[in-house]
Amino acid sequence: MARIDLNSDLGESFGAWTIGDDAGVLERVTSANVACGFHAGDPAGILRTCGLASARGVVIGAHPGYRDLAGFGRRFIDCDPDDLCAEIVYQIGALQALAGAAGASVRYVKPHGALYHAIIAHEGQAGAVVRAVETIDPSFPIVVPPSSAIGRIARDRGIRTVVEAFADRGYRSDGTLVPRSDPRAVLTPDAAIAQAVGLATTGLAVSVDGIEVEVSPETICVHGDTPAAVRLAGGIRAELELAGVEIAEFVGGTAAPATRDAAPAQGSAVGGRG
Amino acid sequence: MARIDLNSDLGESFGAWTIGDDAGVLERVTSANVACGFHAGDPAGILRTCGLASARGVVIGAHPGYRDLAGFGRRFIDCDPDDLCAEIVYQIGALQALAGAAGASVRYVKPHGALYHAIIAHEGQAGAVVRAVETIDPSFPIVVPPSSAIGRIARDRGIRTVVEAFADRGYRSDGTLVPRSDPRAVLTPDAAIAQAVGLATTGLAVSVDGIEVEVSPETICVHGDTPAAVRLAGGIRAELELAGVEIAEFVGGTAAPATRDAAPAQGSAVGGRG
Amino acid sequence: MARIDLNSDLGESFGAWTIGDDAGVLERVTSANVACGFHAGDPAGILRTCGLASARGVVIGAHPGYRDLAGFGRRFIDCDPDDLCAEIVYQIGALQALAGAAGASVRYVKPHGALYHAIIAHEGQAGAVVRAVETIDPSFPIVVPPSSAIGRIARDRGIRTVVEAFADRGYRSDGTLVPRSDPRAVLTPDAAIAQAVGLATTGLAVSVDGIEVEVSPETICVHGDTPAAVRLAGGIRAELELAGVEIAEFVGGTAAPATRDAAPAQGSAVGGRG
Amino acid sequence: MARIDLNSDLGESFGAWTIGDDAGVLERVTSANVACGFHAGDPAGILRTCGLASARGVVIGAHPGYRDLAGFGRRFIDCDPDDLCAEIVYQIGALQALAGAAGASVRYVKPHGALYHAIIAHEGQAGAVVRAVETIDPSFPIVVPPSSAIGRIARDRGIRTVVEAFADRGYRSDGTLVPRSDPRAVLTPDAAIAQAVGLATTGLAVSVDGIEVEVSPETICVHGDTPAAVRLAGGIRAELELAGVEIAEFVGGTAAPATRDAAPAQGSAVGGRG
Repeated sequence: MARIDLNSDLGESFGAWTIGDDAGVLERVTSANVACGFHAGDPAGILRTCGLASARGVVIGAHPGYRDLAGFGRRFIDCDPDDLCAEIVYQIGALQALAGAAGASVRYVKPHGALYHAIIAHEGQAGAVVRAVETIDPSFPIVVPPSSAIGRIARDRGIRTVVEAFADRGYRSDGTLVPRSDPRAVLTPDAAIAQAVGLATTGLAVSVDGIEVEVSPETICVHGDTPAAVRLAGGIRAELELAGVEIAEFVGGTAAPATRDAAPAQGSAVGGRG
Repeated sequence: MARIDLNSDLGESFGAWTIGDDAGVLERVTSANVACGFHAGDPAGILRTCGLASARGVVIGAHPGYRDLAGFGRRFIDCDPDDLCAEIVYQIGALQALAGAAGASVRYVKPHGALYHAIIAHEGQAGAVVRAVETIDPSFPIVVPPSSAIGRIARDRGIRTVVEAFADRGYRSDGTLVPRSDPRAVLTPDAAIAQAVGLATTGLAVSVDGIEVEVSPETICVHGDTPAAVRLAGGIRAELELAGVEIAEFVGGTAAPATRDAAPAQGSAVGGRG
Repeated sequence: MARIDLNSDLGESFGAWTIGDDAGVLERVTSANVACGFHAGDPAGILRTCGLASARGVVIGAHPGYRDLAGFGRRFIDCDPDDLCAEIVYQIGALQALAGAAGASVRYVKPHGALYHAIIAHEGQAGAVVRAVETIDPSFPIVVPPSSAIGRIARDRGIRTVVEAFADRGYRSDGTLVPRSDPRAVLTPDAAIAQAVGLATTGLAVSVDGIEVEVSPETICVHGDTPAAVRLAGGIRAELELAGVEIAEFVGGTAAPATRDAAPAQGSAVGGRG
Repeated sequence: MARIDLNSDLGESFGAWTIGDDAGVLERVTSANVACGFHAGDPAGILRTCGLASARGVVIGAHPGYRDLAGFGRRFIDCDPDDLCAEIVYQIGALQALAGAAGASVRYVKPHGALYHAIIAHEGQAGAVVRAVETIDPSFPIVVPPSSAIGRIARDRGIRTVVEAFADRGYRSDGTLVPRSDPRAVLTPDAAIAQAVGLATTGLAVSVDGIEVEVSPETICVHGDTPAAVRLAGGIRAELELAGVEIAEFVGGTAAPATRDAAPAQGSAVGGRG
C-alpha cells in the first residue's frame, strides 16, 4: 500500500500580521513545518500553532530560514556558513522550547524559502544546515528536494533525508521545479491533485515537457496561505485517500516510498512515455 | 565560611559590533548571564561565549530581555504578559541549543536590563517570567533583586530565587539601587570592592545615607563592558579571596548566604549604625 | 456648512504580510496617515500606497511610531525623548522621499498607536514629537487627541494641531476613549455612523454614560484593516454627505470645525442632556 | 595641482554599540559617508554624526546598504530591484531629514558594503541604485568603483560618478581589489600611504603583481573603525599635503582627477612597467 506524508508551512504570522489558516491546514496535513522567528513567526504565535498541532497529533518540524523578516526568507543571503549554522541551531532550539511549552516536541527540520533553494547547490550553506541538525539531534530527518547538495551531505553524515515533492508546482524534465517566472510554474487545482496522486502512488511526476520524472517523495508539500490553498489541501487529501494511499507522518514511521529502490537516481528523468 | 557567586552579563556583542571582554571576564566570574538575541547577542557570538564559558567551567545562565536591539533592552516595553512569556521561552530555548552546541547547558535565568527592573514591581510581567521558567525547567533558579515581585511570585511557585547585589552601585536605605540619574549611583572602584566584601561577608551594604541595608546576596554582579570594569572584577575577586570568602557558583552548590536566616526580610533596612 | 476630514491609517503592510485595503480606503478618505517603517510599512509598499494616494488626490501625512514591528507600535516603549525625536525625524524624512518618488509630498503628522496614546500625558515624549515636527517643517499640522500634552505643547510652539475623533470608538464623559478592555469600546456600525455625523455637525459625541462630550474634531479616523471597516468608512462618508457635511482635507483648507469657539475646552464634558 | 577627496564611512554605531571614532575621522576627511539605519546607524547617532560633520564643514553623503543589521550590510542579499530602489530612497530621505536637523544637507551617495560590491556587476541592483538617486536628486554624484555597472548606468543617465580608490587595499592588475581572503588584501600603513600619494598624483596604483593600474580616483576611502585606522587616515592626509596634493571635497568642486583624459579606460591595466 502506498503511503505519503503531507506537510505545510505554518506559524508564519508575525505580530499583528497574519498569514495562513493554521487551524484549517492542521486538519489536512500530517507534518507541520513551523516557522522559527527569523523569516516569520513571533513566539506567541508559534506557541499557538504548536498547541494546535499538538492537539491534532500533527508532527512538528522546525522551519528555519534566513534572518529576513522584510523578505519573508525568500531572498538568498550570502551569509557565512558558520554564522548560518549557529542561526539554525538558535532557531531550532527556540522552537523546541515553544513546542515543549505546548506539550509537543520538534521531530524534523525543513529549511525555508530561499535557504531551501540555495542548499540544492550551495555546498557551504548546505553543510551548515547539516551541522546544525547534527548538533541539535542527529536523529532528526531533514526534508530535502531530490538531487540536492543538502540531501547528499546529510546522507553522507548518516542523517536521514526525506524527499519532498510539491503538489501544485510544475516539474522540469531534470526533476527541478519550473521557476515562478514561468507561467507553467503553478498547476491548476485539478492538475495539482492529479500530480499528488501520481507522486504518491508511482513516485513519478509528468514534467511540463511531458517527460516522466522520478521524484519518489516521502512527503508532499501543500500550501495553506490562502482559502483556496486550504481547499486544495483538502482536495488532495481526499483524492489520495480515494486512491488508497495511506496518509501518515514520515517521522517515526517505517518509510516506504513508492519507488524506494530507485532512490539513488532521485530526480532524474527515467522515461519519455508522455 | 562565607561564600558568594560572581556573575556578569556576557555574549552581548551583535554582528560587527562588540561589547565587553568575554574571555577576560570569564577568568573572574563563576556564572555567565548570556544574552539570548533579543536585546543583544547574535547566534554565532553567543555560541563563542558559551564555548569560552564551558572551557573555563563557568556556569551559563540565560539572560533574556525585551525585543529591543536598538535600545539594548534598557527601555521598558509594555508588552502583553503572554507575549512576553512566549518570548522568554523562545530566548531560553535558543540559548539552550547553543549552549548544547558548546557542550554545556543553561542552568539558571537572569532577566536583563529594563525587564529586570520592571519585574521588581510589575506583577504581570513578573508572572510571565516565572511561567516561562516553569515551562522550560522549574528547577532553574532565577536571579532576582531583593524584595521584588519576581522573587515573591517565583518562591510562591516553588522556584528557587537567588538574590543579587551589585558591587559598584550605591544602595538606598530601602534596599533599592540609587538611580543612574543620581551622581551617587556608581561607586568608585575602591568603594565597590569594599561593598562587595561587605556584602559577601555580612550580607549588608551601607546605603548612600549611611544606613546598613540587609541584602544577603547569593551572587554579586560585576560588569565587563570596559577594560576598567574587567579590572574591577578582578580586584573584587582578589579582595574577596583575601577576606576568606569562597567564590563559587550558586547553581548546584549548597547555598549558604551570609545571613540566610534573615531571608524573609531581604532588602529591608535593619539598622542605622552608620 | 459643516466640514470634516476623514483620515485612515494606511501603508501598514510589511513584506509578505498585508493589512488593510489601501486602494479601497483611499476612495473614501481625504487624508492618508502612511506608516513610516518603524511599526509597519516596508519601503516598496509605502511607495505603492503613496502612489495610490497621489493618484486619488488624497493628502499624505506621516504616521510615525515606536520601533516595534513585533508589536505593531501598539506597546508603550519608555524611550529617551532625544532618541524618539531623532527616530521621528528619520521616519518623516524617509516618508517624504517616498512620497516625493510618487509625485506627492507629506503634509502633516499623526503619531501612531501607543505613541499617540502616550503623548496624551507623557510630556517628554510629547515634546519630542513636537520638536521632530518643528525640525522637519513647522508648518506641518499634528493630528492630536483632544486635551492632550502633545496638543498643548504643539500649540505653545505655534504648531497647528488638528483634533481627531474616532467614529467607531465609545467616549467616556471626560472626553477620553473607552479602553479596548471594556465591551463598550467599539461601537456598532450604525452607532459609529451616527456618532460621525454628530461629531461633524455639532462637534459633540454622546458618551457611553449618556453625557454629551465636546470633541470638536477637524478630522475623523476611520479604519480600513478589514472589509467590514472599509464598508463602514464608505457608510460614514455617505451619511456625512447626506447630512450636508463637506468632506475635505484639513490641510490647506480654511479649517472650520463645528464649534471652533469652544476649542480651549476641547474634550471636556459640556452637558448632561442624555 | 593634483587634487583629491578623502572619504570615510561614519555614523555606523547602533544604540549601545559603537564603532569608529567619528569625531577623530572628521578631522581628517573631506567627505563623510553616513550610515542610514539599514546596515548600521540609529537615528540619534546619525544625527550626532551629522552635527559633527556639519561643525567641521565635512560634506555629508548617504551611505545606504542592505537591510541587514546582523550582517552589517556585508552580505549580498538577492533582493528585488524595485524593493531595493524603494529601500534606498527611504534611507536617503531619512538621512536628509537628520542632516537637515543638524543644519546640513546630503550631497552625494555611496552604497555600502556588499551592495557596493554587488553593483560592480549586478545590473538589476545597479539600476535600482541609480533610479533611487535619480528619484531623490539627479544632481547627486554617486561614488563608484572603476569599471562598474553602477558607474556605466549612472553616466548613461547623466548622473555624475566619482571614482573611488582605497588607500590600504591591494589592487589586482585588472583594477579590482584583492579579495579579503588573500593575505595581500590589506596593505601595511607605509604601503597604504604610498599608494594614496600615487593615486592622487598620477591616478595609478601598482597592483600586487607589479603592474601599473589606472584608477584615476576623485576620492580615496580611508577607514576610521579602529584607532590605528584613524592614525593611518591622518598619515595619509599629511603625506598628501607634503606631496602638494590639494585635499578638497569632490562635491561642488571643479573635479580634476589626475588623468581625466583616460576616464573611459578607468580601471584597466595600462602598462607593465613594474
